[in-house]
Amino acid sequence: MTANNEKDRVTAGVLLIGDELLSGRTKDKNFGYLAELMTELGIEMCEARIVSDVEDEIVTAVRALSKAYDYVFTTGGIGPTHDDITADAMARAFNVELFFDQGVMDAMSTSLSARGLELTEARKRMARFPEGASLVKNAANGPPGFQIENVFVLAGVPSICQAMMEDVIPRLRTGKKMLSRTVPCTIGEGDIGDALSALQDIHSDVSIGSYPYFTPTGFGTNLVIRSTDEPALEAAERDVTALVKKLGG
Amino acid sequence: MTANNEKDRVTAGVLLIGDELLSGRTKDKNFGYLAELMTELGIEMCEARIVSDVEDEIVTAVRALSKAYDYVFTTGGIGPTHDDITADAMARAFNVELFFDQGVMDAMSTSLSARGLELTEARKRMARFPEGASLVKNAANGPPGFQIENVFVLAGVPSICQAMMEDVIPRLRTGKKMLSRTVPCTIGEGDIGDALSALQDIHSDVSIGSYPYFTPTGFGTNLVIRSTDEPALEAAERDVTALVKKLGG
Repeated sequence: MTANNEKDRVTAGVLLIGDELLSGRTKDKNFGYLAELMTELGIEMCEARIVSDVEDEIVTAVRALSKAYDYVFTTGGIGPTHDDITADAMARAFNVELFFDQGVMDAMSTSLSARGLELTEARKRMARFPEGASLVKNAANGPPGFQIENVFVLAGVPSICQAMMEDVIPRLRTGKKMLSRTVPCTIGEGDIGDALSALQDIHSDVSIGSYPYFTPTGFGTNLVIRSTDEPALEAAERDVTALVKKLGG
Repeated sequence: MTANNEKDRVTAGVLLIGDELLSGRTKDKNFGYLAELMTELGIEMCEARIVSDVEDEIVTAVRALSKAYDYVFTTGGIGPTHDDITADAMARAFNVELFFDQGVMDAMSTSLSARGLELTEARKRMARFPEGASLVKNAANGPPGFQIENVFVLAGVPSICQAMMEDVIPRLRTGKKMLSRTVPCTIGEGDIGDALSALQDIHSDVSIGSYPYFTPTGFGTNLVIRSTDEPALEAAERDVTALVKKLGG
């Protein structure tokens, strides 16, 4: 139902990696952040997947998303322990080998020794990257993420994921910004649905979403109109506002 | 890395449907709830996907998940407005027609008129189900969800989604409950990673996860051991606890 011109359209998918998300133990915070950011950048978020720490699953999912969308963002699985296998999975997905980056190992070694810590074999895992990858700086001062083809491989810890995105944003082709207007009303979805559907047919160049809410003091619906085209958005907003007024809400 | 016996293994996938999730406007709360519930029931949550309100996308995703896992739970898109197309998508995914359920329309009509509301054409959409579906009661007193084959179609509003699960849980074959033990420590992932990897090799019948945390007052790692086998779990826990002690954390 999105009315973007295909030429202007830039699309994205997200792959969240980790058994701890699937068990419910950890509640993901990265997807909401990335989704809001893409909307701001005019990039259309099209799909997300959550998969376990199993290499086959990661490989299958990242190949599918990489093929389907302009950009893919993965989070999780780039730490120092045995269950951090995202680098391995990315190398396999793109049929390349892994290499150790000496510069990253040197930087880690310096930073660790300042804290009285060692560059253990486990930590060296964080300096492994697929051949052809470019590093993604980590503004939180830890080991970097990386980009391979159209896939950005980021940390699972939300603050580090966000710190890495600082270095990713300038690399992204941004689309025509999706604009939106929200018309709140105290009318139930079922009472406005028929007329709203008719308005959607008239304004086929915008997308009209309808989001019911229920609170202890009452209920209502937020009507959200979206388009990349300002005049089309305004025309639809006028009609939706008039409809709400007519229905007394 | 999960050590479940294939025979006892019961698997699940989740499909979250809605443009408002992908835009970041609404933050999903259903996945975390379903993930925790499945873990309690001994059902292994294997994958989740978020897709937009586009029929093709929903059909493709639900077919893939339905084929891959014992159970699939979908949330969203069963309201009364034009963008609520989950019932249509499920009918297409399973190659059946939609029908209007007279009993559901009668119940809706009675309940609506008590509140001075009408059974509009829009609301009638909520009484449409794919042929062969069985209804899923809505303990929140609204229109029901439904089950078609191994797919449970639930509301997107979290309280209603949860109310519907009350009628779903008794229908599920539950697996051998996954047990877990958490060993917290104040050691960095990079310092315990090598030894932990060696322990994982020794205790190949359990899964050892490692989850770093960072707080303003310090950092550490929660080591989570999982298995359906109590003695295996305890043996691994003893060794992990001893390791943490040895490393002074």
